[in-house]
Amino acid sequence: MLEKMFNAGSVAVIGASRTEGKVGNSVLKNLVNDFDGDIVPINPNSEEIMGLKSYPDILDVPDNIDLAVIVIPARFVPETIDKCGRAGVKSVIVISAGFKEAGVEGAKLERESVETARKYGIRMLGPNCLGLIDTTSNLNASFASFMAHKGNIGLMSQSGAICTSTLDWADKNRVGFSKFISLGNKADLSENDFLQELCNDDSTAVIAAYLEGVKNGPEFIDIARRVTSIKPVVMVKSGRTSAGSRAVSSHTGTLAGSDEAYNAAFRQSGIIRADSLQEMLDYIRAFSSQPVPEGKNMAILTNAGGFGILTADACYNEGLSLASFDESTIQALRENLPPNSNLYNPVDLLGDAGSDLYAFAIDVLLEDPHVDGIIVLTSPQAMTEVDKVAGIVADKVQTSTKPILCSFVGGTQVSEGERILNDYSIPNYPFPERAVASMRALSTYNYIRKQSYTKPPEITADKETVKSIIDEASQSKRLTLGLESLDILRAYEIPTVKTKIVKNLKEAIKACKQIGYPVVMKIVSPDISHKTDVGGVRLNLNNADDVERAYHTMMADVYRYMPDADITGVQVQEMVSGGKEVIIGMNQDVQFGPLLMFGMGGIYVELLKDVSFNVAPINRDEAKHMISSIKTYPILAGIRGEKPYDINSVADTLIKISQLVNDFPQILELDINPLVVLPDNQGCVAMDLRLTLREEE
Amino acid sequence: MLEKMFNAGSVAVIGASRTEGKVGNSVLKNLVNDFDGDIVPINPNSEEIMGLKSYPDILDVPDNIDLAVIVIPARFVPETIDKCGRAGVKSVIVISAGFKEAGVEGAKLERESVETARKYGIRMLGPNCLGLIDTTSNLNASFASFMAHKGNIGLMSQSGAICTSTLDWADKNRVGFSKFISLGNKADLSENDFLQELCNDDSTAVIAAYLEGVKNGPEFIDIARRVTSIKPVVMVKSGRTSAGSRAVSSHTGTLAGSDEAYNAAFRQSGIIRADSLQEMLDYIRAFSSQPVPEGKNMAILTNAGGFGILTADACYNEGLSLASFDESTIQALRENLPPNSNLYNPVDLLGDAGSDLYAFAIDVLLEDPHVDGIIVLTSPQAMTEVDKVAGIVADKVQTSTKPILCSFVGGTQVSEGERILNDYSIPNYPFPERAVASMRALSTYNYIRKQSYTKPPEITADKETVKSIIDEASQSKRLTLGLESLDILRAYEIPTVKTKIVKNLKEAIKACKQIGYPVVMKIVSPDISHKTDVGGVRLNLNNADDVERAYHTMMADVYRYMPDADITGVQVQEMVSGGKEVIIGMNQDVQFGPLLMFGMGGIYVELLKDVSFNVAPINRDEAKHMISSIKTYPILAGIRGEKPYDINSVADTLIKISQLVNDFPQILELDINPLVVLPDNQGCVAMDLRLTLREEE
Repeated sequence: MLEKMFNAGSVAVIGASRTEGKVGNSVLKNLVNDFDGDIVPINPNSEEIMGLKSYPDILDVPDNIDLAVIVIPARFVPETIDKCGRAGVKSVIVISAGFKEAGVEGAKLERESVETARKYGIRMLGPNCLGLIDTTSNLNASFASFMAHKGNIGLMSQSGAICTSTLDWADKNRVGFSKFISLGNKADLSENDFLQELCNDDSTAVIAAYLEGVKNGPEFIDIARRVTSIKPVVMVKSGRTSAGSRAVSSHTGTLAGSDEAYNAAFRQSGIIRADSLQEMLDYIRAFSSQPVPEGKNMAILTNAGGFGILTADACYNEGLSLASFDESTIQALRENLPPNSNLYNPVDLLGDAGSDLYAFAIDVLLEDPHVDGIIVLTSPQAMTEVDKVAGIVADKVQTSTKPILCSFVGGTQVSEGERILNDYSIPNYPFPERAVASMRALSTYNYIRKQSYTKPPEITADKETVKSIIDEASQSKRLTLGLESLDILRAYEIPTVKTKIVKNLKEAIKACKQIGYPVVMKIVSPDISHKTDVGGVRLNLNNADDVERAYHTMMADVYRYMPDADITGVQVQEMVSGGKEVIIGMNQDVQFGPLLMFGMGGIYVELLKDVSFNVAPINRDEAKHMISSIKTYPILAGIRGEKPYDINSVADTLIKISQLVNDFPQILELDINPLVVLPDNQGCVAMDLRLTLREEE
Repeated sequence: MLEKMFNAGSVAVIGASRTEGKVGNSVLKNLVNDFDGDIVPINPNSEEIMGLKSYPDILDVPDNIDLAVIVIPARFVPETIDKCGRAGVKSVIVISAGFKEAGVEGAKLERESVETARKYGIRMLGPNCLGLIDTTSNLNASFASFMAHKGNIGLMSQSGAICTSTLDWADKNRVGFSKFISLGNKADLSENDFLQELCNDDSTAVIAAYLEGVKNGPEFIDIARRVTSIKPVVMVKSGRTSAGSRAVSSHTGTLAGSDEAYNAAFRQSGIIRADSLQEMLDYIRAFSSQPVPEGKNMAILTNAGGFGILTADACYNEGLSLASFDESTIQALRENLPPNSNLYNPVDLLGDAGSDLYAFAIDVLLEDPHVDGIIVLTSPQAMTEVDKVAGIVADKVQTSTKPILCSFVGGTQVSEGERILNDYSIPNYPFPERAVASMRALSTYNYIRKQSYTKPPEITADKETVKSIIDEASQSKRLTLGLESLDILRAYEIPTVKTKIVKNLKEAIKACKQIGYPVVMKIVSPDISHKTDVGGVRLNLNNADDVERAYHTMMADVYRYMPDADITGVQVQEMVSGGKEVIIGMNQDVQFGPLLMFGMGGIYVELLKDVSFNVAPINRDEAKHMISSIKTYPILAGIRGEKPYDINSVADTLIKISQLVNDFPQILELDINPLVVLPDNQGCVAMDLRLTLREEE
């Protein structure tokens, strides 16, 4: 798709400069240094720059130009793109700043730039970016200080500085990239485009991204879900917190989605979320050179007990297991390791272990069918041959089908060992916890790649009814709907409580008979929110006499507590007992659209925030995961010999709500609170509804 | 106290060797390299080693020896210590391994060594350790590869390898130590001794430790509490998890306490717990050179928006705030920063910021009274003068009374800047999150140093009664006590439910009258644990008629459900309503003794593990902290306009239980479940008790 951007045969630099320190100079220099194709400087005042023939205008260039890199002031960019279009340029990179990030004027220029590009079918990277690097085609169309090393990591970043720092970090640590993309303002091309591009790119084995937001949430999930089934994707999403979000909006004008939505979207689409840049870089080094483990059982190999313990702690924290070794492994270790060594996991070779012992132990552990991967620790003790151990690991990695990650812990004395490991692209981490976290990322991907995604099922629904309820409410400016709109749920075949709102005792008795005893009676008044507090709720009414008595005493109580309340009616409903109360909710997220929530009911759980989120639409697996991932799930599943509740019916309801909020984007928020889940095979019942519609714009 | 160990005037090396690679050679070499006092090699086969006169036996040395470093096989150590005693040696370091960590034989040798040392009043470090380093007296009595740099960090480690790796790390990062102690098996001297020693040591500003366990928990808390009021203490405790614990016991034979106990003990004594070695080293660099901030309001200064956001995220995660700048600060920034800079927090100087702009901004931010500390970020962008920025920071740090931490993010291009910062001991972190976490550690210590500790109050208690109940139970081998032993709680003036166990209806009616209506009636049978399930509980009995009816129907129901159950009686108790159920418990921790637990009652909270722990004895502040630190605390404090419950009475009960379990160490476990907390000023009532006694040994 972006063939003419990454594999451009000819590149023009519009705003090329011979003045050192200018961006137009750096970009041209970078191209001249590495690129094999045609390079054409464009500058109104020069005929030649860096030995290349220069043209005053892109329209003057006689040859075809695949890619134009634009480094002129923002106000000239739209017309320049127009010229590019007329000149037949296929794609542009706008490095210049002064667009959306600079305010209203800039935003206008950005819109004009995109519109112009689209008119000519030109794809545009940026504006306000560092450019891009493709090490396969030796294209450095950026003002980075140097060319990236060749490698198999495809990286994109919404922050130019994070590109710069990462390139510099990679230079020191000898980490290589296939493609390196500074996304800038993402006016046209965004993470969605490059995710696909990098997925299709044979030279890319792992995809990494620093994002401050995504441009099109639902599309992002669709694309990422497909990409992650083929290649691992690791991302940092910043602006996680309210404090951070403030900084985002003043930085690139991106509207940050809520962090719950990002967590859900990343999880649902199989993206491994890194909590920091350090974590992302740690993980992608592992993905870049090591195979994905087939399971979670790790062997720890150490020459120091203390580091063994720290690493075992970290495995536990990260959800990895310490492998239980095969009998033959223990036998082999026993025969060859010195007397006081620990033969079990972590295998402690002791402080005077030479490199031969490491070599032997690595071989034995790799052969053990119960071992899915190895973490090799080295502390530079008196006898330690750090460099040789590094060499041994480098050797073993060549033929290993299991991942090996290292942590050589120290400074001066381990630097040569680090260098050797870097030379062979073997991930080494300065502290063991980081090796373990990276191993966990590999192991997580093993799970992700094995998952298969099924589309959400088709839901039978009477959409006409919902549409008419919503239309009517919108027209009469009633944006908040309640119990009276349970027909919305019924239209999606969600079981709802039998209920009626009546005006007097006679109607009440009639309604109760229709609903069937026992019933519950509640006061209806716009002035009363906590009905129980004013005596406005009567439970367990078994016959007409009960109803009559309850009706009168309730009215009397309510009058006593709130004599001025406007009583609009009385609600009678069937009494549902023997169930557990849960909540199903939905909120429209700015970036991902409808975000579903599931949780147990009650104030404890509210305080403890024991809820789960997923972006709609969801399939059955996702619905079940939402239910089972709350901590109080055992209560629903049947704890201590209690019978389980009807979890399937909750999953059904989640899927139906997912479909409802997708069908009707006018629904801004929705709460079914409570949904009563009955014992297994008895279904569930929506007891109340609160639904808010968007204000029409 | 350990004057003759750290400031020894003369040191003997017992087992000194001229053979390269031997530990006895390394130790002697290290002493020769740096130490100014007398050095005496002891070796039966040499008359001179490294130009020093050597003696065959410590008893042959004519001069006084302050410190003997022992590096001979374990089996000779006890008799050698005896000789040291006779020779008037003041203290010994046993480097040799082969003691408790090697098995039963070794453990015996270790006991003998300690006993011998004690006989002569000799203090002993080790065995199975690397030795110690004192940079003030230039004493390197270890087999480390090189001498530590001079500095103000006092470090001890239970793992020799972690000593080695840390020294090596410190060499590369130019971090200095005052004292560096390898604790080994802690047969005599332990963390408790060195905590005090380092606290009294003027050259030590911050204390760090890697521990796998503590030797005497209660003493540890007492000492640490005093030390942390004077100097910051940062510790890693490994073997946190069950996986890790297994590794501990096979490593040094230390019995690891439960992690909850360590968390509680560290928190109660003001120790800052680091989650990894990396964190500990990050934190102590900050403490080593930077002042402690007076508050939590941080300024972030950056030349890159993306890093600003990541850092703001991290501040939020760590509980630090972004300072709201003074009007004058914003004014000054506005006048001097380029147009598109962000003047608010994080202050973004933009990618082309020179060092002058950094200097200006740091000055302005340091002057702002709302700023408690600054995090300076640098990404090596095109125009960035990384080295100069480092120089600027070095300059500003000299006079600043507020902490400044740096994160220069990159690799090759930032290394010179890093070197400059290291030269000036300015903490620099490769990624901003680590700078923020370290700033949080500084800020936490600001809170710790301002706390004052009050001893637990005196409790009036009828200890005789408790003693006789416990003695009687022990004698009759009844190790589990229940409701019948509520007198134990009454003896400590803990309000308990009025209850009686009766044998027949007549007694029941009499007892109910004494207790006062309404009452509750429960079946008592060793065969019935879930009373409600068999109809064995009757609530809300208001008069003798109710009691009679309930008695008969209960008996009939129980008989129907469990005809073979042995019914030993009926329990009647007052009906307590209108309260919240909480749990107070105690478990004996192996290392810290009684560990108190507090939590809300109910299955939700049980699943959600919403409980808090403290090591007993606790004072009122600690009791209140236990109560307020659970997440469901708002329910007790009064949520949504509900009335608060009597939290003071819960605190009283916690303090009384703390006293009880301290007075009677025979109590192995105790649960008051539930304790019903009544509305404010109405107290609380222990409804049930389960108490387990230790088996007599």
